[in-house]
Amino acid sequence: MNLPLGYRFAATYAGIRKKQDDDLALMLSDRPAAAAAVFTRNLVKAAPLVVSAKHLARTRGWCRAILANAGNANCATPDGVTVARATARSAAEFLKLRETDILLASTGVIGVPLDPELIEEALPRLVAGLAPDNFAAASRAILTTDTETKTATTQVQLKGGLVRIAGMAKGAGMIHPRMATMLAFLFTDAELSPADLKPMLGRSVETSFHRISVDGDTSTNDTVYLLANGASGVRPAPSEKGRLEAALNAVTEQLAVAIARDGEGGRKLVTILVEGAANDRDAAQIARSIANSPLVKTAMAGGDPNWGRVLSAAGNAGVALDPFRVDIDLNGAAVCRKGVAAPFVDADVKRTLQGPEILIRLTIRGSGKGRARFWTCDLTEFYIRINASYRT
Amino acid sequence: MNLPLGYRFAATYAGIRKKQDDDLALMLSDRPAAAAAVFTRNLVKAAPLVVSAKHLARTRGWCRAILANAGNANCATPDGVTVARATARSAAEFLKLRETDILLASTGVIGVPLDPELIEEALPRLVAGLAPDNFAAASRAILTTDTETKTATTQVQLKGGLVRIAGMAKGAGMIHPRMATMLAFLFTDAELSPADLKPMLGRSVETSFHRISVDGDTSTNDTVYLLANGASGVRPAPSEKGRLEAALNAVTEQLAVAIARDGEGGRKLVTILVEGAANDRDAAQIARSIANSPLVKTAMAGGDPNWGRVLSAAGNAGVALDPFRVDIDLNGAAVCRKGVAAPFVDADVKRTLQGPEILIRLTIRGSGKGRARFWTCDLTEFYIRINASYRT
Repeated sequence: MNLPLGYRFAATYAGIRKKQDDDLALMLSDRPAAAAAVFTRNLVKAAPLVVSAKHLARTRGWCRAILANAGNANCATPDGVTVARATARSAAEFLKLRETDILLASTGVIGVPLDPELIEEALPRLVAGLAPDNFAAASRAILTTDTETKTATTQVQLKGGLVRIAGMAKGAGMIHPRMATMLAFLFTDAELSPADLKPMLGRSVETSFHRISVDGDTSTNDTVYLLANGASGVRPAPSEKGRLEAALNAVTEQLAVAIARDGEGGRKLVTILVEGAANDRDAAQIARSIANSPLVKTAMAGGDPNWGRVLSAAGNAGVALDPFRVDIDLNGAAVCRKGVAAPFVDADVKRTLQGPEILIRLTIRGSGKGRARFWTCDLTEFYIRINASYRT
Repeated sequence: MNLPLGYRFAATYAGIRKKQDDDLALMLSDRPAAAAAVFTRNLVKAAPLVVSAKHLARTRGWCRAILANAGNANCATPDGVTVARATARSAAEFLKLRETDILLASTGVIGVPLDPELIEEALPRLVAGLAPDNFAAASRAILTTDTETKTATTQVQLKGGLVRIAGMAKGAGMIHPRMATMLAFLFTDAELSPADLKPMLGRSVETSFHRISVDGDTSTNDTVYLLANGASGVRPAPSEKGRLEAALNAVTEQLAVAIARDGEGGRKLVTILVEGAANDRDAAQIARSIANSPLVKTAMAGGDPNWGRVLSAAGNAGVALDPFRVDIDLNGAAVCRKGVAAPFVDADVKRTLQGPEILIRLTIRGSGKGRARFWTCDLTEFYIRINASYRT
């Protein structure tokens, strides 16, 4: 991996979760980094999000480090904010930074107090372990029920030189209620201002992390951070920002798809493509409604070309839609034309739905150019088993 | 059962579904009945709904009969409206009525043409079988995946005499995609005008059938009809309409709860009570968000007092909510106070959650008087099994 310059990473086991896998990660920029954040839309926001948002407001969009833990969400406890501030203060002391230079993220059990001493005790060895190569180790320490790490990197050759982007992520939506949350941390060594970063991240999240769903629940702890430290020495020209944003989008989309693919209990990646809507927002809303339909998701689990469920979910999206202008294709096979059944060989389509990837394409006939993609996974009995019987 | 006067019912097997259970029901009022309808909010509306809405518009809210079939939704097929009109015409001929006197309802497979000849051939024996006592038989003929019939009756003593209300219903939400739909037919022998009926039914549906959810999907065929034929000879005084409406609400609520209890794969009835919201609408939206959360529903399946999921779902309702003013009780046990864990004995609460009924009560501290109840069932592996493997 060609990682962005000027960042160091570390991971350790702090004893926050029972299972003795690393549960604390530190990501440090060697110089001040412009920073942007996107937090959960859930009105119940965990303490680390509240504190980090304040830090970013204080610094006007600059930071030096991210401290992230798995195993405890630090959410819905009496002293959450006090604990979050204490851990930021400890990290700042060990790193010789200001408290506001630290961004926080947590994932795990809701409603159980997080012991700040566990983090304070782990910080010396965490700081000692900081190294540019520990990116993968850090990406492992933020996982909860994920079955694999999720990372993506890319680079862009600009006139001034090469810039690099790397990202890591965990878990989809609120896939696991008490071991919850989607986190993503993105790093680039391009030189960008906070004013550049914020809209760029907003747009990128819109077409990636906001376009995935495992179970339709939104965690209290969802957090995406993007840091740009300029360590490459390359400041993109205004005309080059589009290319840089496209590269960022490639990374966030790759991470988002990896999250959907690894959705709890899911065995298939389901991509939903909606075209011909009045605008992109309508298209996204239709795609979201299809992705959130338990009936569509169970049909995909069973490999059932049940296009009626797709049409019905589209009709429930809250967007004006004439069903008699809707075409639906499943893995390239025409199953519905103008809102009614197309002549297709059930067994043939069924066979293609057994594979690990399914494409549901819904096209609205007419002049609309709205288009959106959305990713989800199938809904299997494993999801129920995991979530019904889960006890910490 | 003390059934409303002036109605006759019939059921037969017309061969619309494979399994040889009655699949066609006829409900006739001996005199013109004022009628009101509530149809699905899904933009994909099945043909019987489109045709019936036109009939009601033509007659300005009067009808004589309901013809309902199970086994085929008559939805998303090229000739749906033509077929629906043909069946209404046939029924009108056999009953010596006008086509517009007939209301239709269908439930079953989407996207497969309904053969009108099956219904035409069954109509003679259906009409011959009409009898006041066949209410239960008719209520059985409209079932699909339901495990039991759902009926409710009540009566109200008014100054002018006794009036009766009876209702039958089937299936919850779009519990079964191709064998879909919620239907409810309500009958009273009180003398009421279409202008009385419409708002009364609207309000009644709002606090009953619109407050249940099995999987969050809304069928293309959902239909509720209310008929008032005046056969009791009793016209409620203006001051008595409130009592009549309360009686109607008791019937619709009883049917709605029966639907939630019989939700596909569900083994527990989950009642969600939200109090202290700014208004009833906000309360309903919070309750709906909790009821639709797969994580709450799987926790209830597993008997897990996971109040964090309830709080998080409330935070996702799209309604302004301060989590630190939220109290949550599970089956009467305080599990969350002011947004954080209350001291409760996990094992004790867990034991109560093993039973067939669960009450989730969420109270927002403050001066709000908004209040709503919502009913759902737990989400079990059976739901997935039924819906992933279902093939006609």
